[in-house]
Amino acid sequence: MARNKHDIEALITGVTSGDRGSLARCLRFVDDDPAFGRAVASRLHEHLRGARVLGITGNPGSGKSTVVDRVIENLRAAKKKVAVLAVDPSSPFSGGAILGDRVRMSRHFEDDGVYIRSLATRGALGGLSRSTFDSVRVLDAAGFDYVIVETVGVGQDEVDVVRLADTTVVLMIPGMGDDIQAIKAGLLEVADVFLINKSDREGAADLERGLRTMLSLVPHADNIWEPPIVRSIATKNEGIDELMKKIDRHATFLESEVGRQRLLSRQGEMFERLLDAALIDAGRAGLGNALEQARNSVRDGEDPYAAVTALVEAS
Amino acid sequence: MARNKHDIEALITGVTSGDRGSLARCLRFVDDDPAFGRAVASRLHEHLRGARVLGITGNPGSGKSTVVDRVIENLRAAKKKVAVLAVDPSSPFSGGAILGDRVRMSRHFEDDGVYIRSLATRGALGGLSRSTFDSVRVLDAAGFDYVIVETVGVGQDEVDVVRLADTTVVLMIPGMGDDIQAIKAGLLEVADVFLINKSDREGAADLERGLRTMLSLVPHADNIWEPPIVRSIATKNEGIDELMKKIDRHATFLESEVGRQRLLSRQGEMFERLLDAALIDAGRAGLGNALEQARNSVRDGEDPYAAVTALVEAS
Repeated sequence: MARNKHDIEALITGVTSGDRGSLARCLRFVDDDPAFGRAVASRLHEHLRGARVLGITGNPGSGKSTVVDRVIENLRAAKKKVAVLAVDPSSPFSGGAILGDRVRMSRHFEDDGVYIRSLATRGALGGLSRSTFDSVRVLDAAGFDYVIVETVGVGQDEVDVVRLADTTVVLMIPGMGDDIQAIKAGLLEVADVFLINKSDREGAADLERGLRTMLSLVPHADNIWEPPIVRSIATKNEGIDELMKKIDRHATFLESEVGRQRLLSRQGEMFERLLDAALIDAGRAGLGNALEQARNSVRDGEDPYAAVTALVEAS
Repeated sequence: MARNKHDIEALITGVTSGDRGSLARCLRFVDDDPAFGRAVASRLHEHLRGARVLGITGNPGSGKSTVVDRVIENLRAAKKKVAVLAVDPSSPFSGGAILGDRVRMSRHFEDDGVYIRSLATRGALGGLSRSTFDSVRVLDAAGFDYVIVETVGVGQDEVDVVRLADTTVVLMIPGMGDDIQAIKAGLLEVADVFLINKSDREGAADLERGLRTMLSLVPHADNIWEPPIVRSIATKNEGIDELMKKIDRHATFLESEVGRQRLLSRQGEMFERLLDAALIDAGRAGLGNALEQARNSVRDGEDPYAAVTALVEAS
C-alpha cells in the first residue's frame, strides 16, 4: 500500500470526484494506518461539504439495524445520499467486523446513493474513535449528505463516538429490567432524541415516564434542547416519520446560537480525543527499539508497571 | 490532597496493614490522579499477594448484580475476603458512578471481609482501564483474596478491562434477539466461562446450542481451555455452585504451562494499555501552554485536525 504524498493527492481526487474504488481504498487505509488516516483527514478539510452526522446507538436486541434501515429508506426517498458506518465488536472469525444482521440491509447495496461499511473495534486505545472520526470526514468529502454512525451499547469508547455526532438517537426498548437505570443515566447527556422501539411491548409507558422523570431532573435553561421521546415499531415502519421530524428539528436547533456553542464544544471534545491518539502514535514512534525490549521483558515476567515507568521516564 | 513521596509511603503502610480509611483514600486518589495512581501501583509491586481477579460482564438486564451478589456469598462462606469494583457508566447526576441496584448488595456493607466500590467511566481515553488496573493492585495489596471486576456490556474499553482478569465470566440471557450474534462474537475470545442466567426463560437451549456451535468454530489445540457453559437462575441461587467449580477449574488451568503463557500474554496487553495511558499523560504534560492555546483556537472554530497536527508536530 503506497502512502506517499502523491498517492494521498490522487486518492483525495478520486474520493472527492465520487469514485467508489478510491473511497473504499481510502477508508481501508484510514482503518489500517493511524498516521495516514490523520494526514488524509487533515488534508480533506477544504473538501468538506457539511454532511450531517447521525449517531444511532442502543443495546443489542433494541432493533438498531432495522431502525437504521428505515432511516436510510426515508432519506433516500428525499434523494439524500447516505453512508453508514457500523461499529461492531471485532469478530474472532473474520478478523474484522462482522456483518451480522446487516444482510437485511443488503438491498441497499445495489443503490448508488447508499454506502455501508463496518468498522472493527479492535486495536489500540481510542482506535475506534479515531478511525470513526477520520472515516466520517472521508465520507463527507465524498459527497454523502448524511453519515450514520451505528454503535452497540454503552461502552465508553462507543459513547465517545456517538457524542461527537451532530444528532444522536438513543434506542431503548421496554421491559429490560432494572439495570436500564444505568444506561439511561450514562446516555442521558448524549441523547438528542430518545427512540422507544418495539413500543408495542409491555412497559413502554413506564419506560417513557421514567425517562421523562430523569430528564426533568437535569437542570437546563429554557433555550437548551430538551431531548424528545419518540415511540416506534421499526419492523412495521411506525414512528419513523416522527423520528425524522425530530432529527430535522434538532438540525434547526443546531443553527441557533446555543446549538452552535454545542457544536463547538463537541469539536473541543474531538480535539482532545484526536490529541490523545496522536500522542500515543508519536510517543510509540519515539520509543524505537526500547519498546520492543520492554515488551520482551514483560513477556519474560517483568511487572508491566515497572516496564512502563522505566520506558516513559527514560524517553 | 497531599501526594508527595512521604504520603505515598504512609498510605501504602495503611493499605497493606488493612486500614479501611487508607484504602478508601488510596482508591480515591488513584481515580482522581493518573500519575499518582501509576506511582502507587508501581510501588505496590512488592506487596502484591496474588489476589484472583474475576471479571464478570454482561449486558444490562442480564442479572449481573445478582450473580455478583451470589458469588460474594459463596466466597464469604469459604472465608475468602472479596472486593468488588463495579464499573458503571458515569451519571450526569452524581458526577460519579451510580449505585443503581447495588443497594441489593448493601447487606455486604456490614461485612468486614467485603469491600464494594463503584468506578466512574468518565474521563480520558483509556481512563477506565488504567484506574481499574491500578485499583485492582491496591486491593490485592490490601489483602483481598478475590477482586471482582463487574462491567456492563460490550464496549471496547470494558472488554479491555475484563480481558485482563484472571478469569472472565460472560453472562448471557435467553431470548435477546438476533443482535446477540454480535456480542457472542466479540466476547468469545474474552470469556473463560459462559453463564446463561435467567435460564428458565424460553430460548436457553437455543442459546446454549448457538454458543457451542460458535465455540466449535474456533480452532484450538487440545490443551487449550475450552470455555464451559453454565446455566443459572441467580435469583434462586441455582447454578452458582457449578459456576464456582468452573471458576476454580480455570484457576487450576492457569497454573499449567499453557495457562501461564496466557497470563503472560495478558500482562503483555496490560503493558500496552498502561503505556498508552502513560504516553498520553507525559505528552500532555510536555505540551504546556501550547495545549491551552490550541484548545482556545478550536473553541474559536479552528479545525480540530489542524490543531492537533500543529500541536504534535511542533512538540
